[in-house]
Amino acid sequence: MSRFWVDRVTALQPYVPGEQPQFPSLVKLNTNEHALPPPDSVMQAIAAIGADQLRRYPDPAATTLCAAIAHAEGLNPDQVFVGNGSDEVLAHLWLAFLAGRAVQTLDTTYGFYPVWATLYGSDLHEVPVNPDFSVDLNALKASVLPVVLANPNAPTGLAISREEVESLVKDNRDRLVVIDEAYFGFGAESVVPLVHDYDNLLVTRSLSKSHALAGMRVGYALAHPELIEGLRRVKESFNSYPLDCIAQVAATAAIEDQEWFREASGRVVANRQAMISALSALGFEVLPSAANFIFVKHSHLQGEQIFAALRAADILVRRWDKPRIGDWLRISVGDEAQTERLLNVTEEIVSRSSANR
Amino acid sequence: MSRFWVDRVTALQPYVPGEQPQFPSLVKLNTNEHALPPPDSVMQAIAAIGADQLRRYPDPAATTLCAAIAHAEGLNPDQVFVGNGSDEVLAHLWLAFLAGRAVQTLDTTYGFYPVWATLYGSDLHEVPVNPDFSVDLNALKASVLPVVLANPNAPTGLAISREEVESLVKDNRDRLVVIDEAYFGFGAESVVPLVHDYDNLLVTRSLSKSHALAGMRVGYALAHPELIEGLRRVKESFNSYPLDCIAQVAATAAIEDQEWFREASGRVVANRQAMISALSALGFEVLPSAANFIFVKHSHLQGEQIFAALRAADILVRRWDKPRIGDWLRISVGDEAQTERLLNVTEEIVSRSSANR
Repeated sequence: MSRFWVDRVTALQPYVPGEQPQFPSLVKLNTNEHALPPPDSVMQAIAAIGADQLRRYPDPAATTLCAAIAHAEGLNPDQVFVGNGSDEVLAHLWLAFLAGRAVQTLDTTYGFYPVWATLYGSDLHEVPVNPDFSVDLNALKASVLPVVLANPNAPTGLAISREEVESLVKDNRDRLVVIDEAYFGFGAESVVPLVHDYDNLLVTRSLSKSHALAGMRVGYALAHPELIEGLRRVKESFNSYPLDCIAQVAATAAIEDQEWFREASGRVVANRQAMISALSALGFEVLPSAANFIFVKHSHLQGEQIFAALRAADILVRRWDKPRIGDWLRISVGDEAQTERLLNVTEEIVSRSSANR
Repeated sequence: MSRFWVDRVTALQPYVPGEQPQFPSLVKLNTNEHALPPPDSVMQAIAAIGADQLRRYPDPAATTLCAAIAHAEGLNPDQVFVGNGSDEVLAHLWLAFLAGRAVQTLDTTYGFYPVWATLYGSDLHEVPVNPDFSVDLNALKASVLPVVLANPNAPTGLAISREEVESLVKDNRDRLVVIDEAYFGFGAESVVPLVHDYDNLLVTRSLSKSHALAGMRVGYALAHPELIEGLRRVKESFNSYPLDCIAQVAATAAIEDQEWFREASGRVVANRQAMISALSALGFEVLPSAANFIFVKHSHLQGEQIFAALRAADILVRRWDKPRIGDWLRISVGDEAQTERLLNVTEEIVSRSSANR
């Protein structure tokens, strides 16, 4: 630390993203990237960028991209806000609507929420999930505090229904409800249709998972224009141009390629089903996932042990050394070859341990 | 506004960037983009990006880019921090080192400083520049408060020497001095060599102007590792991956192409000199610029009048409707054809007005 740091910075405990090693034999299933490459239409849009576009500032309002998102979601452009990944969108909404306020979230959810809470001086109430990791909606409703929920939740993959979210949103119209749909497109019911009816609902999305564009850093928020205007004010007081010109055209092409989205999401869901069936047969408890990852726990092998054995076989998954979830592993859904490799290696690990018992 | 906005957001008055209209006949000299396209090496680096890189998260630490910057500047990578444009870097340093504190800057400088001050609750002391727009260093030294200076300054283009900055930095080693070198490369003396000797100096840079990459959004900070670590903590508590994979390779290629940088900077300086000579001959007062723009005022024509006449001829420059600078225009240095067009149209405007007197 340094004598120049403000106190809040000294207190920060930054979010630690999953590691990003790269070597050819690695099966990387730790950061929930899409199993498939992004659509060709994205590559074509990038190839069409000329040097003069790089020279000029990008459109600070990302007008074309916002219009494409609005069109795809049946909303108006003034109900859309875009940012540098949904992490930036969430950071801005935290500052705009939650800074200095008490906020509810779950005790088992995306690890960045407590970090933003510290950064922006929010007192975070971490409401425990049920023993089966499901959301205790009544506990959330018992408080007037704003709520931040990932749906489907991470790292569990569990989703709640639109009806359940609506019951929370309409229970108190003065309670802001943020639904983080970073993992939309893989089976969970989106709550975006509710944006028309409620001004206390804010939905965030990312193209990192749904559209295989983690490398491009594009996320967005959908909400009532007054909430969007709050986000815009923060953004325009922070960095006028958070999305470079290439990210804007790449994201626009991806959003417009609805056929790719349907097909690619379908393949992820099919591979997820194959993983769930095979791992269940090997003695794993697998939560019913609506995301492009699964959350699993073996009946007798420890999470740490399986993590290490997979790592030794060049398969990287994610595990948190935390009380409730230390024996669970979060495994991203890979492509067909990766799925096969994961399942073969896991079968070996399990049979080796059975032989040693 | 909305009942969900926190008070600080209601109070924000966002920065308004220069307008970005685009039509073929427009001579756009209002946002200080580089006169020339970026180097071919950048286009080649972008063309080499594969779909699988877009699918994966980018390197959160931008290791290769930081190493390239460190190498180019004769620093260690732990003295380098990169962000989504120098605006994001400045926003993060404001939160890390200036939030909630009183801060000194100039009354005539980059218009985003007061916006960050409001966003992060800093009381901003705007020290008046001298009547000739030069910096009153003694006034800054008279206070113990941290200082944020653009050098060369915007919108004046005036630079102070490394020796002058050093006198401020060493005058009080507990005073943080931020030097915003967004316009480096066009003639001002950089203070980067001082980073080795002072832990209370932080230099920010942008590739938007110097490397013709405004469209890619890459900026950086150079400072003592303890200051860099403060920036990293804020960034990692805000958005793990602010630079997409393409921005990282494009910026790395640009930084490494030192020959392009020398030649392109030289052409900008030559065009600037041509503008200064011709406009001086037409009765303009022109401040001695060390940037890729000039700040000019006509001996008898009003700033508003010239701005409108240029605009009518499809030439866009920048003007602020503010007390001290309302009669001044900031004109970006264009390429040779744009310079010729600007000078021809300005000559017409001036002779028309002389004929009408």
